[in-house]
Amino acid sequence: MVGASSNPSKPGGMYIQNLISGGFRGKVYPVNPKGDEILDLKTYPDLKSIPEPVDYVICCVPRSLALDVLDDCAANRAKVVQFFTAGFKESGEKEGVELEARMRERVQGKNLRVIGPNCAGVTCPAHFRAYGPAPFTLNPEAGGVAFVSHSSGLVGNVIEAGLARGIKFSKPAAFNNCCDLNELDFLDYVGADPETKIVGTYLEGTSNGIRLLQLMKEIARIKPLVVWKGGQTEAGAQAAASHTASLAGSIDIWKVAIKQAGAIFAPDFEELLDCLLAFQYLSPFTGDSMAIIGGFSTPGGGASVTSADECASQGLKVPPFTKETQGKLKAMLGTTGTILRNPLDMGAGLGKDSLRILKETLELISNDPGIDAIMFNMWVTWVHKVFSPAEMEELFGCLKDFQGNHKKPLVLISRPGISERERSEDIKKLAQMGIPTYPTIARAAKALANVKQYFENHLNEVMT
Amino acid sequence: MVGASSNPSKPGGMYIQNLISGGFRGKVYPVNPKGDEILDLKTYPDLKSIPEPVDYVICCVPRSLALDVLDDCAANRAKVVQFFTAGFKESGEKEGVELEARMRERVQGKNLRVIGPNCAGVTCPAHFRAYGPAPFTLNPEAGGVAFVSHSSGLVGNVIEAGLARGIKFSKPAAFNNCCDLNELDFLDYVGADPETKIVGTYLEGTSNGIRLLQLMKEIARIKPLVVWKGGQTEAGAQAAASHTASLAGSIDIWKVAIKQAGAIFAPDFEELLDCLLAFQYLSPFTGDSMAIIGGFSTPGGGASVTSADECASQGLKVPPFTKETQGKLKAMLGTTGTILRNPLDMGAGLGKDSLRILKETLELISNDPGIDAIMFNMWVTWVHKVFSPAEMEELFGCLKDFQGNHKKPLVLISRPGISERERSEDIKKLAQMGIPTYPTIARAAKALANVKQYFENHLNEVMT
Repeated sequence: MVGASSNPSKPGGMYIQNLISGGFRGKVYPVNPKGDEILDLKTYPDLKSIPEPVDYVICCVPRSLALDVLDDCAANRAKVVQFFTAGFKESGEKEGVELEARMRERVQGKNLRVIGPNCAGVTCPAHFRAYGPAPFTLNPEAGGVAFVSHSSGLVGNVIEAGLARGIKFSKPAAFNNCCDLNELDFLDYVGADPETKIVGTYLEGTSNGIRLLQLMKEIARIKPLVVWKGGQTEAGAQAAASHTASLAGSIDIWKVAIKQAGAIFAPDFEELLDCLLAFQYLSPFTGDSMAIIGGFSTPGGGASVTSADECASQGLKVPPFTKETQGKLKAMLGTTGTILRNPLDMGAGLGKDSLRILKETLELISNDPGIDAIMFNMWVTWVHKVFSPAEMEELFGCLKDFQGNHKKPLVLISRPGISERERSEDIKKLAQMGIPTYPTIARAAKALANVKQYFENHLNEVMT
Repeated sequence: MVGASSNPSKPGGMYIQNLISGGFRGKVYPVNPKGDEILDLKTYPDLKSIPEPVDYVICCVPRSLALDVLDDCAANRAKVVQFFTAGFKESGEKEGVELEARMRERVQGKNLRVIGPNCAGVTCPAHFRAYGPAPFTLNPEAGGVAFVSHSSGLVGNVIEAGLARGIKFSKPAAFNNCCDLNELDFLDYVGADPETKIVGTYLEGTSNGIRLLQLMKEIARIKPLVVWKGGQTEAGAQAAASHTASLAGSIDIWKVAIKQAGAIFAPDFEELLDCLLAFQYLSPFTGDSMAIIGGFSTPGGGASVTSADECASQGLKVPPFTKETQGKLKAMLGTTGTILRNPLDMGAGLGKDSLRILKETLELISNDPGIDAIMFNMWVTWVHKVFSPAEMEELFGCLKDFQGNHKKPLVLISRPGISERERSEDIKKLAQMGIPTYPTIARAAKALANVKQYFENHLNEVMT
């Protein structure tokens, strides 16, 4: 950690604090010519004084020292150095652009690779390697989702959203300016990485379009790949030039290339996350016929209408249940205040028996041959008033059992409102049970439509 | 309250409990042949025994008693009766359809109007009239937004979202089956109501398209009107038939009619709310050039790129600041880690001076002649870690001062994540300061685009 600091408001202070508070399992060598100890760690005056080659150098010192740091890394036989230091190509200024070119020259032919500059670097949740310099410890859960990104800040946002929604990561990483290692190197790595089951990426441009297309094809053939493209509009492209000096290119060409590769295009942060969440939790499926269950605890005629609209507007079907299913639903739920066709309005007022009825309803609907997946629409404020904490556990247990025992995927819809504490706790609990939660039917529908699209393209390759 | 109950799990129990706990300022007469007192209120065996004519009757008794209740209402000289009771036209069954027709006949020529049936009715926040039968008290804040709806459940959802986001209501009301009073009557009322400054509506269909178009024109001429149409898709239209027996009609024709009327079409719940929020808090404006401020406390190159994309994709512009503005920003923020063109990346790490710098930045940007409105993008988890509660108050105070002293509207963007408690409290505080908050740039942009569209159409009429 070159430029380590005991000042928690400096990047070099936040980085090292987060490594420690995040529980990082490797050794940490603070480097700072001024100090003996930082956070109880022996501090070295320079990289050359460290007694062994290090695996990964984080550099926070000013750009004027960048070339010296590279020389020191080489002297230490370090494998990789990541520059948090900014003020290079992205500044648009001659001095920074030239300095970055000299950095590239300086490492050529050496066994030293550079990440960044202008970059918060790589995280490895399995080793409790917390992310970047933040005033709080951003430590994702370890899992199978990689996210590799032209933007460091967006990696932080994605990790935070993952913590909130139960997305578990293999290697979240930013590469920003791509002075040496670039988007192709990172995609190549996570494509081949056995710990990575799903790849998400944020790209502002590419240094080699043909290679990128080929790489996207190779990855998508073996694991789901979701591409969020920055600089889709003129305004966004101009911001990208100032951010990572990327040439954004035509978004139409990007969309075609992503489609040709069999990958999924995500237009924004929400759709990227929604899609990664669906890939992580749901077993492969290719159907497009949704059952929507509403009116559990709260009546929902309007919700039935608008949730059918939301689902259908994302290209999914909401077919009527079979006569047989409707007949059985009628026997159980009656006709007053209910709508039995699909979306189902259970009609609320289910009282003491509501969990048994829900269980039977889920069973019935999953046996309907016309249904491929199920959305359960829950009004969080209402259920938390009606059910005790123990009953809430029972409710979630009932959903968990269903998710565990049935091939038809189940997702939960919980809209924001006045019970955000309960809602965010529910989302975490449900994620632990293997159930993804979405804030709207439309977002769930879009995510399911994306999953369906991917597996339609790739089911054969994945299965063989 | 016909069918009043002391059982809090029955609709007649929840209604009366909510009237009391909500602080309703009028008299309440429980009606139930079995009881002497319900929640300490003298209870009457029937409507005829109440010593004076009542203004509004809520009916929760089974449908078999509906005609008798109408006769009793007439005997009491009640003005209006709202049937929560369901099982009429919406059931699709002959018996229910016929009964509803007989109800209509029964009140013809009498000074008694019917709301519903299958309907939770009308709320009046200025008189602390809590909404409907729910296991919690849904008491909206009193203000200028009316929401009139074919769906009772959606009125509840809209009120809850309003409580969370600071939307204040004049008369939220549901009409559902429209046995007597229908969507046209409710729209006519809120259009003329001096307490209503903004009208939102959820419509599944209409009994008179020509009259509806005329009415939408009349309303939109004097106040913003936002129309959310249920049954936009085949699946939604079929659900609407089961919900309120409405004929949904062609969504293309609806869209054209709404546009011709100078009203705003909202495709879903989120856009309706986002739009009502913008109309409520922002002064009229017609520009489409946004400034986006990011990188306050947290660096945001990728956020700059993607927020420009989100804004531009909703049809708004993100023009570069003038050379003069950029020069002044450079002098204040420097060039390392910042992006000065628009979106602005303030580059974080502002330290102790951050509030003074933010204040000056807002001032500078609002003086840029190319900018019509400002979006301030704040990472809630980060700011709450960096700032003490007192500093947070100061930050919000700085935004409040700006909103109070400048003609250019300011909106805040606060994305969901791991700090939902802080985020929901922030949203409420900011609303009290007159600042609307959106969860994404895209949703804020869409709301601002809708406001701009409305005032482009109507500024002349509104100003004269």
